Amino acid sequence: MTAPTLATERRIVDEGIVLDTPVMVVDESILHQNIAEMQSFANSHAVALRPHIKTHKTPQITRLQLQAGAAGITCAKLGEAEVMVAQGGADDVLLAYPIVGEPKIHRLLALMERAHVIVAVDTREAAAALSEAMAANERVLDLYVEVNTGQNRAGARPGDEALALALDIARMPGLNPIGVMTHEGHAGSSAPDAIERTALAAGRAMVETAEAMRGAGLPIRVVSVGSTPSSPYTPTVPGVTEMRPGTYVFNDNNAFRHGRIGPDRCAARIVATVVSRPAPDRAIVDAGSKALAYDPSPSHAGHGYIVGHPDAILSRISEEHGVVLLPEGEAEFAVGDRHEIIPNHVCPAINLTDELTVVRDGRPIDVWRVAARGMVR
Amino acid sequence: MTAPTLATERRIVDEGIVLDTPVMVVDESILHQNIAEMQSFANSHAVALRPHIKTHKTPQITRLQLQAGAAGITCAKLGEAEVMVAQGGADDVLLAYPIVGEPKIHRLLALMERAHVIVAVDTREAAAALSEAMAANERVLDLYVEVNTGQNRAGARPGDEALALALDIARMPGLNPIGVMTHEGHAGSSAPDAIERTALAAGRAMVETAEAMRGAGLPIRVVSVGSTPSSPYTPTVPGVTEMRPGTYVFNDNNAFRHGRIGPDRCAARIVATVVSRPAPDRAIVDAGSKALAYDPSPSHAGHGYIVGHPDAILSRISEEHGVVLLPEGEAEFAVGDRHEIIPNHVCPAINLTDELTVVRDGRPIDVWRVAARGMVR
Repeated sequence: MTAPTLATERRIVDEGIVLDTPVMVVDESILHQNIAEMQSFANSHAVALRPHIKTHKTPQITRLQLQAGAAGITCAKLGEAEVMVAQGGADDVLLAYPIVGEPKIHRLLALMERAHVIVAVDTREAAAALSEAMAANERVLDLYVEVNTGQNRAGARPGDEALALALDIARMPGLNPIGVMTHEGHAGSSAPDAIERTALAAGRAMVETAEAMRGAGLPIRVVSVGSTPSSPYTPTVPGVTEMRPGTYVFNDNNAFRHGRIGPDRCAARIVATVVSRPAPDRAIVDAGSKALAYDPSPSHAGHGYIVGHPDAILSRISEEHGVVLLPEGEAEFAVGDRHEIIPNHVCPAINLTDELTVVRDGRPIDVWRVAARGMVR
Repeated sequence: MTAPTLATERRIVDEGIVLDTPVMVVDESILHQNIAEMQSFANSHAVALRPHIKTHKTPQITRLQLQAGAAGITCAKLGEAEVMVAQGGADDVLLAYPIVGEPKIHRLLALMERAHVIVAVDTREAAAALSEAMAANERVLDLYVEVNTGQNRAGARPGDEALALALDIARMPGLNPIGVMTHEGHAGSSAPDAIERTALAAGRAMVETAEAMRGAGLPIRVVSVGSTPSSPYTPTVPGVTEMRPGTYVFNDNNAFRHGRIGPDRCAARIVATVVSRPAPDRAIVDAGSKALAYDPSPSHAGHGYIVGHPDAILSRISEEHGVVLLPEGEAEFAVGDRHEIIPNHVCPAINLTDELTVVRDGRPIDVWRVAARGMVR
């Protein structure tokens, strides 16, 4: 998995195909390769793969992941899960997010009629409300206790704090803590040479926390870890049983900085047209923050990677304009020229589009609806 | 228009109303006030108001703007215009964006059957393609020549460059340059005490450029300027005939830095729920970049403004999590508590949601579909 040289960079849409732009295209063969390789990695480490569907939000891709061998799926929000159970063939769903509030608890109960649902929990308050609803409806809910291994977002601290929380939850009627989970996103945000070390430390903290819970009598059978950048490392820690990467299906510009992939492993790209060339060193493309999202790249200049043009920098975006700074002599940015842009962060970019245009050998073969787009509830 | 004290900050949704979160709510009375005041300002300066609908993308709001006296609307993309002509009652549309490529030219011709359409142009290449299509279809297209007054995005430079472009365009069959336009967005991005000066300079450059075109025999009748931050200034320059603000209908956190408004003029807010409280100084809300958008605030810390809690900083967002850093003693961030967040930049936040929940006196009264959401083409 070394980064390819620029000579191997290729467009995924044939130059001769006219698509109205900006448009999100997905190369079928890269998508299949990304799904197969992650499944193969999980299998080789005897770890269950429960991919996070927030990246693609597309039922057809959930089906591809399940057909490849995924043990279930991960969703952030109930709305995503409802779509994937109804349309994506999912029957085993982790909601890797606290469920808080009466409207959501009602929807959770309805979803539990249609699929095995596991919910992440990291507070006694959220657990108590779930317990009350489960007991009232004579249901038992499987839970993962969320542990903060360093991202400092949600989650109880590893060790005693997580153990105390798990014990309290286990005493609540209708709740069944079966696992621990973490999102070690801080590994991917650390310096490239620190990712492995940070990820392994997170994995070990999780296994130790699970052991402590087992020692206290809790039947914890799942140790679940997350994130694509850390995916080569955390799941290799003995005792980790499940991995939940998301971005790997497409990859993105931020994945470059981890040094594991090149543009040719990036399945999702925005085809954009040069709509103005106001100065020799400046071109305007028709993709801005409403197509690419505004997410920064931690290490690369600009708002996306223009395939085949590493020196052309997408230096500024406004809502519908991308301002490209061009090196001297760059000849392929005349008005009407089209380019493929790999977003910095593919997940929010996919969440801006209603459809993915699927491409095989450079030609569109299908359009998939991003059915869970905008499902923030 | 002085900023109100914090004591006047109010929620727009009644505490007792249960809405599933995160949800974008719009206060009807603030919306009406914002629309009325901008129209009144335009009227008092005898300038046509042609609001940019990219901010709201909602037909009902286009209708409110037209009923208040707007002379027409501004859209960035054809898809927005198609929606507003079909559903928003618009019959006079400026496409403030270059139209490039055959698919769009076909759609433009179709739209011209249903509304008066003006198109921005800033290159001979785009103009030549439009000319060919108009001549072939025996149509005449009204154009504004886009001028770059300092934002350095699209546009010809004021004076000779714009004049030469306008003269070349005027010679092309089927094209009728009737105006000049600029988006003086650089004024709003400048230091607060420089906004007025920068905006006035942009306005004067536009009027001088229009005069030069008239002197060369071109019947330029419109001098059109844009952007909400500069809206109190640029339209006051004698000779400016049209203004195109967008954000003013809602306002946002970035508007604070211009010192003209307080939170109580912000009509659009995301109601979010505290879903975790992993540490005394840290709460997690259920609104992240997929609800708020990632756009930075140039002068305020954080990713949005939490109404009534100026010291609670929305310091980090991931896709579905907002990490709030809390001051000591902050008591209103328990799991289940709900807060209203004013986005840094309201336009991309609206573009993330399919619906606006309209609120009157704290209670939901209607749901409006953001019908032009995602219309990037």
